[in-house]
Amino acid sequence: MAAKAWGGAFDGQTDPRVERFTESISFDARLAEVDVRGSKAHSQMLSEVGLISEQEKNQIHAALDEILATILAGKFPFRIELEDIHMHIESALIERLGDTGRKLHTGRSRNDQVATDLKLHVRDAIDRLDGLLVDLQRAFIGRAERDEGVILPGYTHLQRAQPVLASQYWCAWCEKFERDRTRLRDARVRLNESPLGAAALAGTTLPINRQRTAELLGFDRPAANSLDVSSDRDFVAETVFDLTMIATHLSNWAEEWILWCTTEFGFIKLPNAYTTGSSIMPQKRNPDVLELIRGKAGRVVGNLQHVLVLIKGLPLAYNRDLQEDKVALFDALDQVEASLELAAAIVEHAELKKETISARIEEGFLDATTLMEYLIQKGVPMRTGHETVGKLVRLAESKACTLAQLPLADFQSIAPQVEQDVFEALGVVNAVRRFRSEGSGGTASVAEQVARWKQKLAST
Amino acid sequence: MAAKAWGGAFDGQTDPRVERFTESISFDARLAEVDVRGSKAHSQMLSEVGLISEQEKNQIHAALDEILATILAGKFPFRIELEDIHMHIESALIERLGDTGRKLHTGRSRNDQVATDLKLHVRDAIDRLDGLLVDLQRAFIGRAERDEGVILPGYTHLQRAQPVLASQYWCAWCEKFERDRTRLRDARVRLNESPLGAAALAGTTLPINRQRTAELLGFDRPAANSLDVSSDRDFVAETVFDLTMIATHLSNWAEEWILWCTTEFGFIKLPNAYTTGSSIMPQKRNPDVLELIRGKAGRVVGNLQHVLVLIKGLPLAYNRDLQEDKVALFDALDQVEASLELAAAIVEHAELKKETISARIEEGFLDATTLMEYLIQKGVPMRTGHETVGKLVRLAESKACTLAQLPLADFQSIAPQVEQDVFEALGVVNAVRRFRSEGSGGTASVAEQVARWKQKLAST
Amino acid sequence: MAAKAWGGAFDGQTDPRVERFTESISFDARLAEVDVRGSKAHSQMLSEVGLISEQEKNQIHAALDEILATILAGKFPFRIELEDIHMHIESALIERLGDTGRKLHTGRSRNDQVATDLKLHVRDAIDRLDGLLVDLQRAFIGRAERDEGVILPGYTHLQRAQPVLASQYWCAWCEKFERDRTRLRDARVRLNESPLGAAALAGTTLPINRQRTAELLGFDRPAANSLDVSSDRDFVAETVFDLTMIATHLSNWAEEWILWCTTEFGFIKLPNAYTTGSSIMPQKRNPDVLELIRGKAGRVVGNLQHVLVLIKGLPLAYNRDLQEDKVALFDALDQVEASLELAAAIVEHAELKKETISARIEEGFLDATTLMEYLIQKGVPMRTGHETVGKLVRLAESKACTLAQLPLADFQSIAPQVEQDVFEALGVVNAVRRFRSEGSGGTASVAEQVARWKQKLAST
Amino acid sequence: MAAKAWGGAFDGQTDPRVERFTESISFDARLAEVDVRGSKAHSQMLSEVGLISEQEKNQIHAALDEILATILAGKFPFRIELEDIHMHIESALIERLGDTGRKLHTGRSRNDQVATDLKLHVRDAIDRLDGLLVDLQRAFIGRAERDEGVILPGYTHLQRAQPVLASQYWCAWCEKFERDRTRLRDARVRLNESPLGAAALAGTTLPINRQRTAELLGFDRPAANSLDVSSDRDFVAETVFDLTMIATHLSNWAEEWILWCTTEFGFIKLPNAYTTGSSIMPQKRNPDVLELIRGKAGRVVGNLQHVLVLIKGLPLAYNRDLQEDKVALFDALDQVEASLELAAAIVEHAELKKETISARIEEGFLDATTLMEYLIQKGVPMRTGHETVGKLVRLAESKACTLAQLPLADFQSIAPQVEQDVFEALGVVNAVRRFRSEGSGGTASVAEQVARWKQKLAST
Repeated sequence: MAAKAWGGAFDGQTDPRVERFTESISFDARLAEVDVRGSKAHSQMLSEVGLISEQEKNQIHAALDEILATILAGKFPFRIELEDIHMHIESALIERLGDTGRKLHTGRSRNDQVATDLKLHVRDAIDRLDGLLVDLQRAFIGRAERDEGVILPGYTHLQRAQPVLASQYWCAWCEKFERDRTRLRDARVRLNESPLGAAALAGTTLPINRQRTAELLGFDRPAANSLDVSSDRDFVAETVFDLTMIATHLSNWAEEWILWCTTEFGFIKLPNAYTTGSSIMPQKRNPDVLELIRGKAGRVVGNLQHVLVLIKGLPLAYNRDLQEDKVALFDALDQVEASLELAAAIVEHAELKKETISARIEEGFLDATTLMEYLIQKGVPMRTGHETVGKLVRLAESKACTLAQLPLADFQSIAPQVEQDVFEALGVVNAVRRFRSEGSGGTASVAEQVARWKQKLAST
Repeated sequence: MAAKAWGGAFDGQTDPRVERFTESISFDARLAEVDVRGSKAHSQMLSEVGLISEQEKNQIHAALDEILATILAGKFPFRIELEDIHMHIESALIERLGDTGRKLHTGRSRNDQVATDLKLHVRDAIDRLDGLLVDLQRAFIGRAERDEGVILPGYTHLQRAQPVLASQYWCAWCEKFERDRTRLRDARVRLNESPLGAAALAGTTLPINRQRTAELLGFDRPAANSLDVSSDRDFVAETVFDLTMIATHLSNWAEEWILWCTTEFGFIKLPNAYTTGSSIMPQKRNPDVLELIRGKAGRVVGNLQHVLVLIKGLPLAYNRDLQEDKVALFDALDQVEASLELAAAIVEHAELKKETISARIEEGFLDATTLMEYLIQKGVPMRTGHETVGKLVRLAESKACTLAQLPLADFQSIAPQVEQDVFEALGVVNAVRRFRSEGSGGTASVAEQVARWKQKLAST
Repeated sequence: MAAKAWGGAFDGQTDPRVERFTESISFDARLAEVDVRGSKAHSQMLSEVGLISEQEKNQIHAALDEILATILAGKFPFRIELEDIHMHIESALIERLGDTGRKLHTGRSRNDQVATDLKLHVRDAIDRLDGLLVDLQRAFIGRAERDEGVILPGYTHLQRAQPVLASQYWCAWCEKFERDRTRLRDARVRLNESPLGAAALAGTTLPINRQRTAELLGFDRPAANSLDVSSDRDFVAETVFDLTMIATHLSNWAEEWILWCTTEFGFIKLPNAYTTGSSIMPQKRNPDVLELIRGKAGRVVGNLQHVLVLIKGLPLAYNRDLQEDKVALFDALDQVEASLELAAAIVEHAELKKETISARIEEGFLDATTLMEYLIQKGVPMRTGHETVGKLVRLAESKACTLAQLPLADFQSIAPQVEQDVFEALGVVNAVRRFRSEGSGGTASVAEQVARWKQKLAST
Repeated sequence: MAAKAWGGAFDGQTDPRVERFTESISFDARLAEVDVRGSKAHSQMLSEVGLISEQEKNQIHAALDEILATILAGKFPFRIELEDIHMHIESALIERLGDTGRKLHTGRSRNDQVATDLKLHVRDAIDRLDGLLVDLQRAFIGRAERDEGVILPGYTHLQRAQPVLASQYWCAWCEKFERDRTRLRDARVRLNESPLGAAALAGTTLPINRQRTAELLGFDRPAANSLDVSSDRDFVAETVFDLTMIATHLSNWAEEWILWCTTEFGFIKLPNAYTTGSSIMPQKRNPDVLELIRGKAGRVVGNLQHVLVLIKGLPLAYNRDLQEDKVALFDALDQVEASLELAAAIVEHAELKKETISARIEEGFLDATTLMEYLIQKGVPMRTGHETVGKLVRLAESKACTLAQLPLADFQSIAPQVEQDVFEALGVVNAVRRFRSEGSGGTASVAEQVARWKQKLAST
């Protein structure tokens, strides 16, 4: 059995069930690379301030590189008695270097070491996520030409409301994922303070240089208070929240497209590569990927709750409860990264079923609001116009026709202000053409939005 | 690449990322045993109603046994293209038996198959959990003799309130875990209806016998409605909630014992086998197991939220989102089972530090309420007595003494009803002796409770 | 300013912001009735054991009745300095009765008093909820005759899967709400132990009779351990969980009907009394009630999370954090009761749009599985049949026709086993007629289910 | 009964239960001020683009001011038939101004109006919260002089770890609340885009000027996509998350101080104005405010969960579910604002019990790590030093003395490197004096931190 790093004051053996219960190597092995990065910076600094020699530093760096290579090659034996990735690596170092290895942990504790590793890991993840979000935005904007001129119903309350160009949808999703990008960017700035050298919770009496390790690891500065560092998991909670927002946005989009894939809506066709079948029903083509993406929101929300409940009510400073923040964080990262990757592929490869869409596009009085606005422009107060159009809709319903199919006389019987030019306002094509407010779903606004996104994404 | 079970209506290949994203074999392999159990019952029934022959049934049973043995021996190759444990087993069966294997899935779908497997798995888990809860109760009651006569402060608001016997604490925890047992028992009754034969969502036109498979699998009856079966995950949510309650109770107990392990409280000593040390601070003996048990409540609460968010807002019947209910369920089961096991060990092996406890037991005016009740028995209205004792406490505080150390004259100056016999009511020993209400923390009540628990646990 | 009940040991005034922060009268006033009920039982017992006189008991009962009447008439002045409903009532009692009023709190604490009140409140609420759930079941079953013979698509993955009778849906919902009823029933049994007389946390030295108050209040027995009582909120968490399950079921149903209300599905029409309009779009009729019911699931899940986080990690016994469990509990009760009431009304008054439904009912190959089962009955192994029908579906798709529209020769070209009688298996009417498994969505099974529900609901 | 704004296309009355169920006036009345602010900007713009006249604008502004004054004076009659604050105000406007009032809603919908109001409300709340956070930081730093030189145990795992100056704690809390401030600041920037003029979901055909209303309301720009605006509640979720982090930090601090208030720790005394008593136990002084602050974290976490579940899985654009995001948001704001206010008061007025603290400060071997670092500076490799000190701690334990009380010979028997100067490293005073790493809990670092905070807070 491997000797515990902290065995000095102990007699008696640890219960093996305790080792299984307290280990984290089963989930923190993925921190190997950042742990080595952190230890190299730490030992570099130790040599600079004279706590170890230049030669010792060089030996440590070489051995760490070798250990990491072994780990990445899948040849490193993990043992739950060694608890976590940090102890595995230090233990392997001591095995190789003896007393020199025993000096690596000078002036640091596992508390600041773990926090440092975790921040480096999150920072890398944020950078990857940013790329995936951009890929997804590119997939949406990449549709714009293919779908040019396609008019879709816009919905509120899932009732047909007003017509919009398809690309208005694509740009809407880009806006949401753009907010996700900025949220992650803000989180990255906030977390970028180095925990290293805060030691257990109180700092150290040794002459370490925290500015130097911060600099070597790309942090903006050392974190300012050792008690805070030892207890701080804000950056985990914030990152998982940001992932929750991405997962929620993906769930909204997935729900929409699941609806659009139904026989009833029939707006969109997913390629077979992104659907699966049924074990019993031979005709089925199911949008499983979309459903799983929608469901992942539940998983990530669960991860967020895990982190929040974990933290709630803990006094300063480090408490072991915090160990499992990584379980939630890593799972949230994995789920969201995989979801984003597949979402981009689906957005790229799905096909709008233009004929099915246009066959029913005049159902649901999507032009009613345009008609009301026509009346406003004829001088009718808005509320009066609203009521008037309500009556016209009822008339059309009773005649089982669209508004555009009502004769002028019918309009005038209810709204004498209506003239022949009303027919230039009716029907979804007219409505979409007439939208003129900034950010609207009409022709001019959508063209402008698409152009702006293209430029922005080109320069990202 | 393995052929998909549902490949008939498809052309084109599945994107390998989709296979990775939709697979569940990485977490549902643990259902192998119950899947085989279910398939044996199903094929038994199929042979009885004539949908397969007796001989085919026998071949299927033998092959399933063989496949399961291979899986349990860790020699079965899992491939993500085969999605889940159910497809792996059916595919291996077809490999071995050809057309006979192709008949197993007659009259069922993966939807009812998965629901059946999951219910069998949960039923087994509930039975294991019940045993673990009883073990924990036994550990508490097993302390009663060792700790006999030890008086502990009882707290409200974490302020010292009244004295109770240590075993009053042990019995309190038994009450909580007993409610957990009954909750699980209720859940077990409720879930024990057989999904098998509900097929995809509508039932089947084949002459299957659902009563028979229900009976073979130990279900009380077939579930009554196929649409309900295909969409129902109530039993998952309810089980995870029941686990949440156990985890919450464990978190309450862990918090209490973490406090009791501090230098400041000093009530309890954990054996070294159940503590760990620090990577930097040589003197530390940390109650990591208790902290992790406390933290697990966060993880299990997160799992519950995962399940609830997953289910919310899904229309009938099966939706693929539900696949990941297993991730949350299995993790919650694992965490709670491991926590219960270690909790029992810690309860059994910890030692009350009787001297430390008794050294400060008269601090905090734990007998103030007993004094008030003494006054009530002398005819003082309760509210008046409350106020009177409040004044006496302030007097004692100003003299830096306990109530029992006040001279009689001091009592009488504030409460003329007080007589010499007041000293038989003061001090924690007297207080504990005098408690007489049913369920109180006093001598008689606690003895009765312990005796009742011993009897109950002996017959469990 | 009213004197605090606990003012004796205090000098100095409470900060008024503290009074506002700690008060609960703004949300616990609704406990007035149960508080009086509890206090009457308590004083009845006090008089029986001789702690107060018969006459005092009578005075107390009369005054409590009077106070309650004032409260129910909305004429009772609430003041935040008096903290909660319990102190308001006791204070009013003392105002009326002087020393006799000061005796009411003999042998009890607010801790057991609050727990008793809360259990009585929850017990009443469970009984109301049971009635509302039955009303909703009645509304579903009440539709059965009106909707007899209507065939709806059944869905998995929101893709058309197999046909079922409309009443199969109605019975599915009844099954879910029936499980909710049994869950509440179990919770009611579990909570029905009397906290009264557990006092603050340790019991009392006074000769109270807990059996008697338990009996007077309809509890099955006194709760067994005073520390447990003082810390126990299991019944709150369990009740809120049970409400969460109801809210989740309602959210599933609401989602389904929101889809059915769309232009695209067009299965159902809500009466105007249950829809609302848009402030801008004159044609809109929105299913707001359904949307809010769906959204309420979020609110109730949030309430559950509130309770769980509150409880997590608290040591024994009472901690003030628990005060706010009532905020979550009462809100969850209110939301679910209102949702159930409106759900029943909507279920009763909505109309299936039979023509719209039947116009597209043959889309989506709902009979493909029936065809596969036809092949199985002709001796084709299930997996082979599945693949064969997959090919037939592709053939029909390529011809833009239904399976029933394929000529026999086409069938035989792919599946030589097919004979002329295949046309008796094709089309949704045939499929529904042929379903024969117990609990299926076919004619015989649905008739049986409806009959069983009618009988059950008649005798409830 | 008031006429519905959307009554035109409807016949039949709304069920009164529906009105009660769908109303939001009971919780959105607090938006009156921002609603008027938004409507004034909107009508200003309408007059500038010629959709209403200057005179109409003036009439509208005057009437809106008058209506708001009535509302703020508590004299405005709210009626649930009028649904929400927006309809109440518009309806009152029409009552006063007739057709002119009917024009206010030109070119906007309730969807963009509500989003605008809510953003204005959140923006104001963020500004208030920032002030409250600064007040709390000032309260902490305000203690620094009073508590100068007080040494407290630092804890990990709630076990005594190393000594720190009391002000290291105060600065640690300031760091956490500072991160909360920057999170809110980031959220404020992100939300500051104007929804107004997005109308229902598609924009409008009227010539409105969204830049102008954005500018008038202090937004940085108009939000870019109308579909996004109509569905976006990111800013609600993000704000509630930021509140959750504040509540969590407060819960951590409250837990710590609840522990410090116990008889066992005895580190701190709360003034009577911030404690309350017991209804039964006359001696109790309970830290109720701290407990409630801790518990509020549960409430706010519940609110966050409410919002997230609400949003999950909704397709574009507005769905009525979203209405209740305000319930969660407003409650979270109220709880956190009240908690922050009282936290600052308690931090300001509590007293460290210096004698009780120092009486036991040498317990727990708080100087063990300093001793280890002494050995490192004598050339002992860290891991060897760790083990050596572990043995010395065991030796001291066996002699029931502190490390400083061990004779030099004892040190040298285990660690020959130890010399007489070891006694300058032992004891908490020496340890605190010797800490030299940046951000440590030692004298120099803490003085520097306090100075930095004073300067920062002075200029805020």
